Amino acid sequence: MMQIARDNQTEFRPHFKTHQSRKVGNWFRMLGVDKIAVSSLSMANYFLEDGWTNITIAFPLNHREIPLLDQLAGKAKIHQTILSPESVLLLEKQLKNRVNIWIKVDTGYRRTGVIWDDFQEMDSIIELLRKSEKLNLQGFLTHAGHTYKARIKEEVEYIFEDSLEKLVKLRDKYKSVLPNLKISYGDTPSCSIIKDLHDIDEIRPGNFVFYDVMQSIVGSCKEYEIAVALACPVVSIHADRKEIVVYAGSVHLSKDSMILHDGTEIFGRIALQEKNGWGNTLPGCYVSSLSQEHGIITVTENVLKKIRIGDLIFILPIHSCLTADLMQGYRLTDGTEIDHMSGSIQKSWH
Amino acid sequence: MMQIARDNQTEFRPHFKTHQSRKVGNWFRMLGVDKIAVSSLSMANYFLEDGWTNITIAFPLNHREIPLLDQLAGKAKIHQTILSPESVLLLEKQLKNRVNIWIKVDTGYRRTGVIWDDFQEMDSIIELLRKSEKLNLQGFLTHAGHTYKARIKEEVEYIFEDSLEKLVKLRDKYKSVLPNLKISYGDTPSCSIIKDLHDIDEIRPGNFVFYDVMQSIVGSCKEYEIAVALACPVVSIHADRKEIVVYAGSVHLSKDSMILHDGTEIFGRIALQEKNGWGNTLPGCYVSSLSQEHGIITVTENVLKKIRIGDLIFILPIHSCLTADLMQGYRLTDGTEIDHMSGSIQKSWH
Repeated sequence: MMQIARDNQTEFRPHFKTHQSRKVGNWFRMLGVDKIAVSSLSMANYFLEDGWTNITIAFPLNHREIPLLDQLAGKAKIHQTILSPESVLLLEKQLKNRVNIWIKVDTGYRRTGVIWDDFQEMDSIIELLRKSEKLNLQGFLTHAGHTYKARIKEEVEYIFEDSLEKLVKLRDKYKSVLPNLKISYGDTPSCSIIKDLHDIDEIRPGNFVFYDVMQSIVGSCKEYEIAVALACPVVSIHADRKEIVVYAGSVHLSKDSMILHDGTEIFGRIALQEKNGWGNTLPGCYVSSLSQEHGIITVTENVLKKIRIGDLIFILPIHSCLTADLMQGYRLTDGTEIDHMSGSIQKSWH
Repeated sequence: MMQIARDNQTEFRPHFKTHQSRKVGNWFRMLGVDKIAVSSLSMANYFLEDGWTNITIAFPLNHREIPLLDQLAGKAKIHQTILSPESVLLLEKQLKNRVNIWIKVDTGYRRTGVIWDDFQEMDSIIELLRKSEKLNLQGFLTHAGHTYKARIKEEVEYIFEDSLEKLVKLRDKYKSVLPNLKISYGDTPSCSIIKDLHDIDEIRPGNFVFYDVMQSIVGSCKEYEIAVALACPVVSIHADRKEIVVYAGSVHLSKDSMILHDGTEIFGRIALQEKNGWGNTLPGCYVSSLSQEHGIITVTENVLKKIRIGDLIFILPIHSCLTADLMQGYRLTDGTEIDHMSGSIQKSWH
């Protein structure tokens, strides 16, 4: 991903919400990364305390947390995403420290953000920001999350080109008065699939650090590139219905699922344990249902013969961010245990 | 629930996997409860260290954790669920301490357990247990989880009567050689809806401590009886499409959903903040989609007018166990913060 950023002469600001690990963060730092994105102030603080000094909160401002934002902004270069004039007014009133601002733009995902051509709203936000001495407008930030619904590469390409065209139009509209506005672009599928990231000043992919089954179905990666799996003890075998039950439920894996082309709903792919981790994913085998602590895995006749109660089965998650968050830590294939924020500090209460 | 148990002269062994809180556990203790069920050995240990001395692990034996089970059995009266002859052999070989054993029986849920009329398997397990000096067979334990798929009271009643009939037949089959075998019965819908729990020696409901939207749809409770909600800051308002965005995603609420009668998929019900917590659920308003940290709430025109960015919205979860597990703690309506196991110790790695 660094190479893709370099080839395109775009800034690389990896999103740390997938791994949420200082140790994994350090691996990025060793490669020269010095800017990151996070999805909450508590996550910003977790990495700030580990020495990161340039952090984007890629989540709409939570008005209830402005005092905490101000504290962080006193210690590091903080970028905050906003999407309403009210947020600008409140920040201006309550902040003591300088904060960099990105306007969150909706290019079609329709989750949140200012709709890219709602120029009335955009004008009023930009006007307020131009008057501010504490808030430095950096540019437009988008997360084209609708790429996650894509099932072929061409769909991702289409969404990317469409989003970018809108962002460039937006940037150009304000060029005469604000010539230095930048475009920050998110989403792992786009950054993994598109080779030419022309006109983008900064990319913020996150999931690529591990990838997952969803990304493999979207086309961002191959299944053998998925770098995280949940190791689950087999607790019962039901040979008559070709099912095995593992100690791994929705409190470990999360309840995210995908519908395959044939209509089957799956909650994860399966691999067997090998000397240094896990092997290839097993065709025809998948997590077919989950309750709180039980996982039901449908297996083929052939795989069934290889499994005994007490074995470890590896589940490749549909959504690695959620599984990592639930497990609160990682074990590397060499046995070392490393941190995850959710095992280290409690989630935000603000 | 205690009254239901008393009226039926059945033992009350509440399942603590829903709240996973020592403080909430203490409220039970103050009412005279002295037996509990849990779903993992780490959870057993969490409560054992808080003074609980009679604990059922209502989850199939994890062969990899027998040494830990043995440790716990040295400190308290531990009941373990098993479902295979292999488990009995391994326990007999590895345990130093005595453990009470329940055979997990499948009465139709088809998640796991010995199928109730697989007498060949049942005979071989019971024969091994009768020879054992360390393992004390207590009886048959079932979780008729298919009640969660019920949408009318009569379905729950049918499932209950059917399951119980099978368990009674099973118990009677072994009565001549083992006259003291008991029946332990789970699931909140049955225990909430059925008044006459004849023939059941012990009930293990858990979810009733909070209830949730799923239970209200099954018919176990009314929406106003749901005792836990996720307080979420509003971070943006999209009046044009009658949606509000809250800082509350799948890492906070979990991805559990329900399909309503009209086909709508919902991830939670909504209520507004009131002086001592939250008000009634708002008709026509619901969580319509979730990503990692964003929750999208569909609201009515009327409710939209009452909401400002920065307000707290209360989401009543589809599945309270998962939301509590993700939030790692609770705040009471009086402001006190209380514990949840997942905020206190890391999940099991065995």
